[in-house]
Amino acid sequence: MHCLGELKKKLKADGVDGFLVTSEINVRYVTNFTGNESILLITPGHDYLFTDFRYAEQAQLDVPWAKIAVKKVSLIKTICGRLKRLNVKKLYVESSHLTFSQYLEIKECMERIKLVPTKGIIEYYRERKTQEEIEKIEKAIVVAEKAYLEIRKKIRVGVSEKYLSDILEFEIRKQGGLRSSFETICVAGSRASQPHARATDRKIQEKEAVLIDWGATFQSYNSDLTRVVFKDRISRKFEKIYQIVLDAQRFAIECVKPGIKAKDVDYAARSYIESKGYGECFGHGLGHGVGQEVHEYPVINKRSKEVLAAGMVFTVEPGIYIPGWGGIRIEDIVLVTKDGCNVLSRLPKSLKDIQI
Amino acid sequence: MHCLGELKKKLKADGVDGFLVTSEINVRYVTNFTGNESILLITPGHDYLFTDFRYAEQAQLDVPWAKIAVKKVSLIKTICGRLKRLNVKKLYVESSHLTFSQYLEIKECMERIKLVPTKGIIEYYRERKTQEEIEKIEKAIVVAEKAYLEIRKKIRVGVSEKYLSDILEFEIRKQGGLRSSFETICVAGSRASQPHARATDRKIQEKEAVLIDWGATFQSYNSDLTRVVFKDRISRKFEKIYQIVLDAQRFAIECVKPGIKAKDVDYAARSYIESKGYGECFGHGLGHGVGQEVHEYPVINKRSKEVLAAGMVFTVEPGIYIPGWGGIRIEDIVLVTKDGCNVLSRLPKSLKDIQI
Repeated sequence: MHCLGELKKKLKADGVDGFLVTSEINVRYVTNFTGNESILLITPGHDYLFTDFRYAEQAQLDVPWAKIAVKKVSLIKTICGRLKRLNVKKLYVESSHLTFSQYLEIKECMERIKLVPTKGIIEYYRERKTQEEIEKIEKAIVVAEKAYLEIRKKIRVGVSEKYLSDILEFEIRKQGGLRSSFETICVAGSRASQPHARATDRKIQEKEAVLIDWGATFQSYNSDLTRVVFKDRISRKFEKIYQIVLDAQRFAIECVKPGIKAKDVDYAARSYIESKGYGECFGHGLGHGVGQEVHEYPVINKRSKEVLAAGMVFTVEPGIYIPGWGGIRIEDIVLVTKDGCNVLSRLPKSLKDIQI
Repeated sequence: MHCLGELKKKLKADGVDGFLVTSEINVRYVTNFTGNESILLITPGHDYLFTDFRYAEQAQLDVPWAKIAVKKVSLIKTICGRLKRLNVKKLYVESSHLTFSQYLEIKECMERIKLVPTKGIIEYYRERKTQEEIEKIEKAIVVAEKAYLEIRKKIRVGVSEKYLSDILEFEIRKQGGLRSSFETICVAGSRASQPHARATDRKIQEKEAVLIDWGATFQSYNSDLTRVVFKDRISRKFEKIYQIVLDAQRFAIECVKPGIKAKDVDYAARSYIESKGYGECFGHGLGHGVGQEVHEYPVINKRSKEVLAAGMVFTVEPGIYIPGWGGIRIEDIVLVTKDGCNVLSRLPKSLKDIQI
């Protein structure tokens, strides 16, 4: 992968003997290896992929440039054996992806090794998508959108939330997706006030809005979208709140470009919702990066310290949730371009469009 | 949940002020709360569930006996605030489910707190299934079996591996399952030599065996099964190796009962496969517990230190894998009873049965 050379340079420059990549997704990003429970050791010299018997054959095929080591007793013990032979004294670890138990196990094997906690080294590269990655995300979006348009036809009174999410899963696969990128949220009526409620066997009633938050995985890349639809005539209250959320989303998207602080994008939507008196009803962040993970960097919320850069891909998903009444969220995916942004998702979302 | 009282007693007896449960599944086991990214603090007095805005409403409904705290900045900081107010000096942590970064964050907030690494405290209870849990696993098995029987009819030359796994997913949901319990392994021909290969768009060819490893999730509980099927006449070599795997599985199942060492069950299958000259071709453990996780305790392999006890539910899945030729694995789920075991899964598997 393109970042490997830079990582090796960084290790040399920082005077570190190796970098233990324990995040499964980061291992996949660097190696394209899709097996689970495998750990990558990058050193200024050779690189080593530690895996188990199940993936030994696949690892040889997928990562010919690394030395493949198959664990005997425990992956960490196999790794420590290698670290000793390489005389590694100072090792970068991914502190958010190394368990306390793995930390203790390494320290037990190698008393004098210095484990330097790091955060976001590979995530820095993952945040800035290559053209190839953007195309895969676009494909993941198209798959999700096509699948949605199919099931949208089937939304009617008496159909259950779970049935809709089950056929959505099937359509995603039929359209060429690997699967849903997460468990579809498909909730009707007042249940939509729980931003992450599960789809249940509950049947859609008359005059209920349906909130669907779904996505597709295409070649390890994901999409994540939300739409609200309404079968009958929309109530005044619903209309008013929907328009507030839609405008908030537009204000946020309008300010996306390189050099802008992520928290300012959040602020654009949040301050508008607050000005309309619904600040308390928008309790989550505005968005999150999407790529090999459904939730990744950049984080778009009021505490984010990130500055937008070209190649970043993230969701913009303001919402208003009122317990006992329901909830509205509108979610699209944007790409930061050289001088602004492209909205990659294209499903219509005006008040007129959300009526079936 | 039934273990909460015992856990509180244990904390008192061990002179520990609290137990921080960071494993999502363990939190779910103790609380029945299905939201993600939530952490439970058990103390001899009150208990606290730390979650975020998305799940606040659901947490109140699901866990009325705990105090619900919604995170502001970070979950760990919110927890540390509570630990300070409770004057917690010695805290049990789940070392396999606490990240190095969370460990560092707690230590930074509370210099003097003693974090005691523990392993398997809640897993001990999870290993021993209650009648209610067994019934859910049985349901997850029945769902998986019914779905399999539907797609078995569709196995023929020219159908792709991925198509089969896609319709299997749909059938699982149609039969009342929440979803597949993991990404279905559906591989044909020589690809089956990779024990965990992904289903691809590759179409099934003549004279190829198809290996399907799949499971269903039903109310948070899982199943995990494997069958090999053959469309044409079975080759002599295939027949011979299949029978070895089948006999190995039978020998293993025959020795399952309370008091037996898990590694002896593994040995029963492994030594037989070795005696037939295929020892090198069976590189993984014999089985694993199944419950709220697809892979959980007990571990059934040659290094396992566990002793079987009534209520344990695990897979028995010997396999023989020959690179370039293919692979055979047969997987069923057994329950350890008071004086022996019940095989909970019922799909036929004789040489005759695997020919379509």
